Amino acid sequence: MAELYLEDLKVGQRFVSESLVLDESAIRAFAAEYDPQPFHLDPEAAKHTLFAGLAASGWHTAALTMRLLVASLPISGGLIGAGGEITWPRPTRPGDRLRVETEIIAVTPSKTRPERGTATIRIETLNQHGEPVQVATMRSIVPRRA
Amino acid sequence: MAELYLEDLKVGQRFVSESLVLDESAIRAFAAEYDPQPFHLDPEAAKHTLFAGLAASGWHTAALTMRLLVASLPISGGLIGAGGEITWPRPTRPGDRLRVETEIIAVTPSKTRPERGTATIRIETLNQHGEPVQVATMRSIVPRRA
Repeated sequence: MAELYLEDLKVGQRFVSESLVLDESAIRAFAAEYDPQPFHLDPEAAKHTLFAGLAASGWHTAALTMRLLVASLPISGGLIGAGGEITWPRPTRPGDRLRVETEIIAVTPSKTRPERGTATIRIETLNQHGEPVQVATMRSIVPRRA
Repeated sequence: MAELYLEDLKVGQRFVSESLVLDESAIRAFAAEYDPQPFHLDPEAAKHTLFAGLAASGWHTAALTMRLLVASLPISGGLIGAGGEITWPRPTRPGDRLRVETEIIAVTPSKTRPERGTATIRIETLNQHGEPVQVATMRSIVPRRA
């Protein structure tokens, strides 16, 4: 993939990632390390929670989204997030196949740093039914051409 | 720790977590799986990037923040995030000792679901110098007492 600079990004431009499947053992392993709560660890206990069954940690969905994003949005110098908003409209479940669809929603040259700017990116993480499991709007630092 | 319900949460209430140290091998292992970019993987290559040295993936900082949060904020039924905002004011570096300081900034009973409500929580992740490496404001679903 060609490396993209700020000048290459246009509002409305879209990128689509490959997909990956998340299995129950991966959900439980991530949760054991980072988010050890019954609804992410134990399918039986999870039945009696708000999730009504095992669900991936939202931070696991976020980490996998980053993996798919890095491979599908070739910003020059890499993807460096400054921050943004994130929501999880529905749980990620064992066996879900995830993909990421990205849209550029703003491109802003820096007023003080002529060598770079900010791209605002809407990042939807979709399951195999096309339903969003995560929607994020993130600001990313993007270099300009020399 | 006693389990907390919506009625137990007050604006301004604070919680402080234990701390943990993040080493270089953990930074590289997380990055290899979820955020494979040179500034998270290779200390030498990272010198020549915007980070000017190896830095943890922001999603790694977020995942570790969740681990510290789960152990320090005992919401009844668990910590279930609906979403929010997240920023990374400075990088997390190898050897950093992280802790999490949490403040309740809003408590809102649901208008339609009498059994629960939403707590809005400001979550600061600080390094050993007391500098924030992540600041998040998240909405969490919290049950009310029966």
